[in-house]
Amino acid sequence: MTVRGWVQTTRSSGKIAFVVLRDGTGYLQCVLSKAEVDEAVWEALRQLTQEASVAVTGTVRADERSPGGVELGVTGVTLLGASVDFPVTPKEHGTAYLLEHRHLWLRSRRQVAIMRVRHEVVQAIRDFFYERDFILVDTPILTGSIGETAGTLFETEYFDLGTAYLAQTGQLYNEAAAAALGKVYCFGPTFRAEKSKTRRHLTEFWMVEPEMAWYDSDDNMRLQEDFVSYIVARCLDRRAAELRELERDITPLERVTPPFHRISYDDAVAKLQTLGSDLRWGKDLGADDETLLANTFDRPVFVYNYPKAAKAFYMKEHPDDPRLVLANDCLAPEGFGEIIGGSQREDDHDRLLARIKQENLPLEAYGWYLDLRKYGSFVHSGFGLGVERTVAWICGIPHIREAIAFPRMLTRLYP
Amino acid sequence: MTVRGWVQTTRSSGKIAFVVLRDGTGYLQCVLSKAEVDEAVWEALRQLTQEASVAVTGTVRADERSPGGVELGVTGVTLLGASVDFPVTPKEHGTAYLLEHRHLWLRSRRQVAIMRVRHEVVQAIRDFFYERDFILVDTPILTGSIGETAGTLFETEYFDLGTAYLAQTGQLYNEAAAAALGKVYCFGPTFRAEKSKTRRHLTEFWMVEPEMAWYDSDDNMRLQEDFVSYIVARCLDRRAAELRELERDITPLERVTPPFHRISYDDAVAKLQTLGSDLRWGKDLGADDETLLANTFDRPVFVYNYPKAAKAFYMKEHPDDPRLVLANDCLAPEGFGEIIGGSQREDDHDRLLARIKQENLPLEAYGWYLDLRKYGSFVHSGFGLGVERTVAWICGIPHIREAIAFPRMLTRLYP
Repeated sequence: MTVRGWVQTTRSSGKIAFVVLRDGTGYLQCVLSKAEVDEAVWEALRQLTQEASVAVTGTVRADERSPGGVELGVTGVTLLGASVDFPVTPKEHGTAYLLEHRHLWLRSRRQVAIMRVRHEVVQAIRDFFYERDFILVDTPILTGSIGETAGTLFETEYFDLGTAYLAQTGQLYNEAAAAALGKVYCFGPTFRAEKSKTRRHLTEFWMVEPEMAWYDSDDNMRLQEDFVSYIVARCLDRRAAELRELERDITPLERVTPPFHRISYDDAVAKLQTLGSDLRWGKDLGADDETLLANTFDRPVFVYNYPKAAKAFYMKEHPDDPRLVLANDCLAPEGFGEIIGGSQREDDHDRLLARIKQENLPLEAYGWYLDLRKYGSFVHSGFGLGVERTVAWICGIPHIREAIAFPRMLTRLYP
Repeated sequence: MTVRGWVQTTRSSGKIAFVVLRDGTGYLQCVLSKAEVDEAVWEALRQLTQEASVAVTGTVRADERSPGGVELGVTGVTLLGASVDFPVTPKEHGTAYLLEHRHLWLRSRRQVAIMRVRHEVVQAIRDFFYERDFILVDTPILTGSIGETAGTLFETEYFDLGTAYLAQTGQLYNEAAAAALGKVYCFGPTFRAEKSKTRRHLTEFWMVEPEMAWYDSDDNMRLQEDFVSYIVARCLDRRAAELRELERDITPLERVTPPFHRISYDDAVAKLQTLGSDLRWGKDLGADDETLLANTFDRPVFVYNYPKAAKAFYMKEHPDDPRLVLANDCLAPEGFGEIIGGSQREDDHDRLLARIKQENLPLEAYGWYLDLRKYGSFVHSGFGLGVERTVAWICGIPHIREAIAFPRMLTRLYP
């Protein structure tokens, strides 16, 4: 057989040479015995360098010592594409250097494993909703109706129509779609022009956002715990080899089953204060608070019923306490923090209008959104799960920049 | 049982009233006999208006005359959300009006059916690649390396790094990923700031782009015909009801099986000229040419080996004729035109560098792309399929603006 791929490593003694070849799907050890081949083949193989592309011909044979249990006994080698001084060597490189060479860094074993886990996470997300009869609705990126924070928008000129913003969420559009299709989801890139340099922020990241007609806040949390558990179980089932490659301890992941823990915002603040946090009632939890709180639980935890002032304008006021909204976050364990934000949506026209005015949002851009409360308003809820944060958690990697192929950050737009 | 949903239509005589309820997943006929219920229930039901949201209680019973074979014998009705003068009535509205009310227009039967077909197309695309061990790689939207035409880019300011462009393609990034993962695909929104107002252009549209290491141009076309046939067959299998709702003649769709027809660009030009086109050798086919040519075939057709001058810089020169590139388009039948553009990629460093210079592209943004030809260069090919064009073709709708929930066009950014 002939295998095409790239040279990962080579080593040789005077009589025998080994090449580990990778072809994108896996790794194959190729073995050459000097005594058994022409001098030219021996020399060609010995001169191979890291990431040269080659076609190697030989015989597959079982070998217990070899990764994968087989090796290729080489009879011929053809160099397809040379590779002189490949920039990402097995030695340690700094992060800035690696990010600058991201297009090549992607070929390393760890990065390949992370990308394959991400691939599984995304397909699991889509399968989960497909199996449950949700309809995918691709919501627009270019929009006049912003969803979250006005201060962190990327802008672009849109012909004669003025400024368009890059969507921070597809939720508002999802709400319109839920009235048409019942249960829907969108899943695309979202954008935040935030000047933050934390390990949990990207300027461009993927988010999946389901929106369900007739779901209240409790229904919403039940769906979330089923959803997160499904994704984790799917990766444990189908990406065990990649998680091993990443040296991920899977014990904490195996505990991710419904029901998740639930704690009200009020109780969370009290608990955090006893744990030494200086969080005051009314503020959103910071990253440190999330870690502190999540560490007291053995699986993900929902924090629910947040103060209205700390959350977005579209969340439904708590029927018994107008200071609160029917919102929840879901915090991953092991210090990974928030992976989901969700809420029941305000379905009362006048209350929503008052919130839009309070936030100084441009009313003309929200006429259509208010229409949803004028024509057959309905109880509905939804949430957003950040893909990179979820992948980072499942892979056990500290910074989400490795959870996407080409991360976009405050100081990085290349490659 | 109690069903929640929206009122689609109502009609009543003095003794019996009918309400067709839709809940996003389907339609249910509800029947009320005046003699069998309280006066209050009768009045409540008779006063329902289009798109009011309601909870209807009753007994499900078989009824052959009813759509779906069952109807609900109503015993109680609760109005949940009123709907006064719903703007999109069964009467004819102009396109501009409908697009302005897209958030409500989506609730109509045709639009619901189109969205459900689109949902199936997208899931079929993802399943096709998942089943064949392609790895999804989400490529960036914000980029400095443009892929297609410099004149049609949306721009945004990117912190201190200058201008970022919204991606027209993920292909260049895919090529880097293919060297890491073998067979990959990206699938996300893409952007063209084109001032075109045709029925086949949007400024924001979804495109799926696979990229395969070790595939040449022929392998590429074989994958394309398998891929397109898979999508069509899946819709015929699982969305028959929606295609009926759309009154789609499925006979032409049933013919979509491999192999597709193949015609070289040279032969296509000659054929078009005999059919009356004034196309000259060297120019790309226009929409009318595509229709004229595709109409001579009973299933999709590949046009291959295009003139270099008519195509993008990254396509591989034909080994026997430097005027040509190893590119192909795939034209859908029935006048729907191009749904795929694909090519083998230039894998020779110096030839690619010359093309980048010829096109006056900024070299510093393409350093990483040239690296792929410096470190283990490899034969590879890929293509892009436009989702909205594919959905429009399968649904048999003339304009692609209905193939996406919230279309973005030259003159439309709202809702």
